[in-house]
Amino acid sequence: MSEHIYETDFIVEFGDCDPAGIVFYVNYFKWIDSTFNRWLRDNGLGQDLVAARWNAVGIGVIEAKASFLAPMRPGDNLVMSITGIDWLDKTLRINYHGSSSEKPVVKGFEVRGLFKANSDNILGLIPMDEVRNMLSHENHYDR
Amino acid sequence: MSEHIYETDFIVEFGDCDPAGIVFYVNYFKWIDSTFNRWLRDNGLGQDLVAARWNAVGIGVIEAKASFLAPMRPGDNLVMSITGIDWLDKTLRINYHGSSSEKPVVKGFEVRGLFKANSDNILGLIPMDEVRNMLSHENHYDR
Amino acid sequence: MSEHIYETDFIVEFGDCDPAGIVFYVNYFKWIDSTFNRWLRDNGLGQDLVAARWNAVGIGVIEAKASFLAPMRPGDNLVMSITGIDWLDKTLRINYHGSSSEKPVVKGFEVRGLFKANSDNILGLIPMDEVRNMLSHENHYDR
Amino acid sequence: MSEHIYETDFIVEFGDCDPAGIVFYVNYFKWIDSTFNRWLRDNGLGQDLVAARWNAVGIGVIEAKASFLAPMRPGDNLVMSITGIDWLDKTLRINYHGSSSEKPVVKGFEVRGLFKANSDNILGLIPMDEVRNMLSHENHYDR
Repeated sequence: MSEHIYETDFIVEFGDCDPAGIVFYVNYFKWIDSTFNRWLRDNGLGQDLVAARWNAVGIGVIEAKASFLAPMRPGDNLVMSITGIDWLDKTLRINYHGSSSEKPVVKGFEVRGLFKANSDNILGLIPMDEVRNMLSHENHYDR
Repeated sequence: MSEHIYETDFIVEFGDCDPAGIVFYVNYFKWIDSTFNRWLRDNGLGQDLVAARWNAVGIGVIEAKASFLAPMRPGDNLVMSITGIDWLDKTLRINYHGSSSEKPVVKGFEVRGLFKANSDNILGLIPMDEVRNMLSHENHYDR
Repeated sequence: MSEHIYETDFIVEFGDCDPAGIVFYVNYFKWIDSTFNRWLRDNGLGQDLVAARWNAVGIGVIEAKASFLAPMRPGDNLVMSITGIDWLDKTLRINYHGSSSEKPVVKGFEVRGLFKANSDNILGLIPMDEVRNMLSHENHYDR
Repeated sequence: MSEHIYETDFIVEFGDCDPAGIVFYVNYFKWIDSTFNRWLRDNGLGQDLVAARWNAVGIGVIEAKASFLAPMRPGDNLVMSITGIDWLDKTLRINYHGSSSEKPVVKGFEVRGLFKANSDNILGLIPMDEVRNMLSHENHYDR
């Protein structure tokens, strides 16, 4: 009955944990980013293809936030889900939820946009309508 | 004339950057966390001492957020500042600001608390009054 | 017909790659270490249990080496194998091999030992006979 | 009286350490790589310039090895030195040494080469004579 848009999982490695013996929180953002990029690739749209197709730098992150709900330890399994996507004018907000053994451990979001460099190599946002169309085709979610 | 509570700096390494050639955003949280821990140690309160003194797991992170204002590249210098601290009941909110060549590149915050394990190894928050006192002694900021 | 002692796999994430668009080599050591620790845990011997059982710091690394045979890119799958183990007096050499789509991409080794702190908190090696026995029980390799 | 070719330093961060409370060994390779890239940039030759000048992927790593001589903990200072460079036909071996509070903590080496993609996007090594010349100008070492 999950209505998650995407789901993938990770193993908490020994090296992901800090002297407190629990996950060093920065790694949750690595897993959040990896979830986004796995979803992108599973939709046939890796960052390299995004860059090539729109002559862009990629779908970069403008803002990211996470709340840590319970500690995780080496060997734990993390199930990360994309629970919702809000398409704004030139940005995209992706909501994430992570659980381990059915228990919530992290939730957060990223705001992303399609970045392109101008002639001065300054990055700016360009419209994402085509990206949105490619990521919204029902037939991509045949899982 | 800076009224920053603490300031420290980092070099953006080649390995901190992703295929887009700019900093992989997750690393900003590493620098934010490192800024906090450098500040703690410079106040004579490393996480090991925190753990020993209060029989705690450490001053862990409950929530973290960052906004990315401009890209950084290998070799860039990042100056990270703690711009404000809000002491709440059992938590602490630390505000951060990062700049490179005087240009803002990142801002964000962490909410942290002093975590202690109970007899079932479940982590809970304990009061931070003593921590607050130790981090507020004026004579610690002789920089 | 593989005679590998252990095999596990990883996904190359976008954030594992550097501005050249290929895996930042340091991550191969992360995967090598993760392979060792997954093997340890799959034998019922996580580093926390090692620490508790022998009042030790853990099975740490004394030396590590890797050769990089072909580049990997975001989304590639990495199959890591432990191809051999040499038990020496107080150390253990573990040989690794990694492949992607059947093509060799990395090989290397780690030399590890069981570290214990003495009364001055100096780390030294202690005999690993018991560890060796626990890791050599045939019935652990039922995969 | 140091005859080191290059020297730079790093701070061991809390997040660089693992549940044993000491540096997670993989990070030594990050510092080794960062030492190389800082040296390159200080010689006016960042990887981006290398890529542009020789239409190459960059000066990548073929092999890396390190021995870990003593543990380091959060807040420790690491001084990394390039102690020698061997120029081979199409490769370069860089020797590293790291110390903390005058005590050796790590030594190792990297073998690197200048990688260029052919028309099939297969990476191969190209001669490094020009790189060698640029890195050997005495006047670059005015430190």
